[in-house]
Amino acid sequence: MTARLNIVPFVSVDHMMKLVLAIGVERFLTDLAEYIEEDFRRWALFDKTPRVASHSIDGVIELMPTSDGRLYGFKYVNGHPKNTRDGRQTVTAFGVLADVGNGYPMLLSEMTILTALRTAATSAVAAKYLAPKGAVCMAIIGNGAQSEFQALAFKALLGVNRLRLYDIDPAATRKCADNLAGLGFDITSCASAHDAVEGAHIITTVTADKQCATILTDNMVGSGVHINAVGGDCPGKTELHRDILLRSQIFVEYTPQTRIEGEIQQLDPDHPVVELWQVMAGKASVRADSRAVTLFDSVGFATEDFSALRYVRDQLAGTGLYEELDLLADPDEPRDLFGMLLRAANND
Amino acid sequence: MTARLNIVPFVSVDHMMKLVLAIGVERFLTDLAEYIEEDFRRWALFDKTPRVASHSIDGVIELMPTSDGRLYGFKYVNGHPKNTRDGRQTVTAFGVLADVGNGYPMLLSEMTILTALRTAATSAVAAKYLAPKGAVCMAIIGNGAQSEFQALAFKALLGVNRLRLYDIDPAATRKCADNLAGLGFDITSCASAHDAVEGAHIITTVTADKQCATILTDNMVGSGVHINAVGGDCPGKTELHRDILLRSQIFVEYTPQTRIEGEIQQLDPDHPVVELWQVMAGKASVRADSRAVTLFDSVGFATEDFSALRYVRDQLAGTGLYEELDLLADPDEPRDLFGMLLRAANND
Repeated sequence: MTARLNIVPFVSVDHMMKLVLAIGVERFLTDLAEYIEEDFRRWALFDKTPRVASHSIDGVIELMPTSDGRLYGFKYVNGHPKNTRDGRQTVTAFGVLADVGNGYPMLLSEMTILTALRTAATSAVAAKYLAPKGAVCMAIIGNGAQSEFQALAFKALLGVNRLRLYDIDPAATRKCADNLAGLGFDITSCASAHDAVEGAHIITTVTADKQCATILTDNMVGSGVHINAVGGDCPGKTELHRDILLRSQIFVEYTPQTRIEGEIQQLDPDHPVVELWQVMAGKASVRADSRAVTLFDSVGFATEDFSALRYVRDQLAGTGLYEELDLLADPDEPRDLFGMLLRAANND
Repeated sequence: MTARLNIVPFVSVDHMMKLVLAIGVERFLTDLAEYIEEDFRRWALFDKTPRVASHSIDGVIELMPTSDGRLYGFKYVNGHPKNTRDGRQTVTAFGVLADVGNGYPMLLSEMTILTALRTAATSAVAAKYLAPKGAVCMAIIGNGAQSEFQALAFKALLGVNRLRLYDIDPAATRKCADNLAGLGFDITSCASAHDAVEGAHIITTVTADKQCATILTDNMVGSGVHINAVGGDCPGKTELHRDILLRSQIFVEYTPQTRIEGEIQQLDPDHPVVELWQVMAGKASVRADSRAVTLFDSVGFATEDFSALRYVRDQLAGTGLYEELDLLADPDEPRDLFGMLLRAANND
């Protein structure tokens, strides 16, 4: 009987930051993107379900489970747009990877930072397939917590090196521009969303308001553009005018979830969409017309978190960047849980 | 900006044992039962959903979320009957309590021990309403990890002081009898389930096999008995012969979940059952005939875990029986997650 069955490795926020910095942000994003794409390519294997959401007036708390039959993963994530008013994050998250064979958790990890990374990596993976060839200029509308990660993922995977930033709060744009200074971008801070999309090959919308907003209107979207719509991700929260959707080729992660949460909640429930895995598997044509507008209606799916947890687990060995949590009861004899308690009393 | 927003208290297995021992097992069960009953009594408030299960050949991994609108809780729990072969627990669990207002986790706790306690407390709460008056003799069929907790909960809440133990493995019965020695029971170890039920006012079945078993057949159940059926708790896993169900008044926690997982999966989907909260609210009559057989078809519901997490949280202050986990990213400026990463690099 090993004495280690009680232990689950835990990656704290501090350790996650150290891990990301040790690997390098862009390499982390590139490697993570490979895990994400690998898991999209074995889509049929996964146990898929729309996330389990608990909505309240102020926000939402969600559980996002999935399994490939060997590993099981889930993420806890909240979305509370008002949180920033009292110094809290809009989105925080943590997740667990477990062994399907015995049900034991193998990893507990912070996922606030990891979610920003996996969301950006997923966006870039999608754009690799969907964006016009040679796209190097990206507008980022919404310059909050996720914006820099999006920029770096698009740089690492697609070579995007020109950014046009806009946020209703100029301080957010300054923060984003300052953080990205010296990282290889030509950055333009813009005075309006209209200004930001000017000349952009890719438009990333990543705002946080929990309401139907219209960050982009139809006249702002030129032909041949790829839209990476990241911010709309729960019922009642959208970013794009419906007319844009009607003239775009729409790509989603997992249709049943995106119908509920994505931009396409504005459309008929049978409006045609293509799932990302279908593109990767060569089962869908993309951008047949170079003037076509493509839209990745990103809401974030459980397999992406699963990929991220898998990636983190694979990087941990030898780093020491985790703690050991005494999370699982491990009596000497498995059926003797009460005896373990009795013996703990005698040991005191 | 407080520096503490990143911290979530964590109750390890060791700390949970120390907390239970500091409070005392029977008092813990009694107090916990009050929390469980309190939450059953405000049943309508809860956001209820059958647990989200991921089944595999070897077992199941489940998430059990619920919320009362102010607090949100969920439990991760597995069920893998073969686990004991290699020294692992059949069931392990952990859980999280969170603030609905901001979505931030407030407590992470081991729940392997806590689940055994809450299951036993729930059984005893149910029996308080359902068992025949003056019931002092209980048969326990299945003497594994949960058996002692069941015995102590029934002693603490109902005054049960005579136990008749049976397990297909006599070593399990010896273990259970040894663990309970000196705790105020008159204990009889029995050679068969038939023998065990002899003279028992309450029959608790708490076996672990993941298959349709027939721990009790109809001829074994005399009139006026209360059956506390704990072991059957997933599709295909039952413990009682169908004929027993047909002549019992059946009580459940949350009907939609119990139809899937409980003993009543053997019955028509419209077979009448009564939910426990209805009994507590005086909306259902119980045991109108003293010869009636009552059956608590227990599968374990999310509100019970919620109650348990709430109880543990309320006991923690001043005990020091928790660690502080750096689980949540807390940048100086909430939208500056990437900046936090940059500053971490500069601090190294």
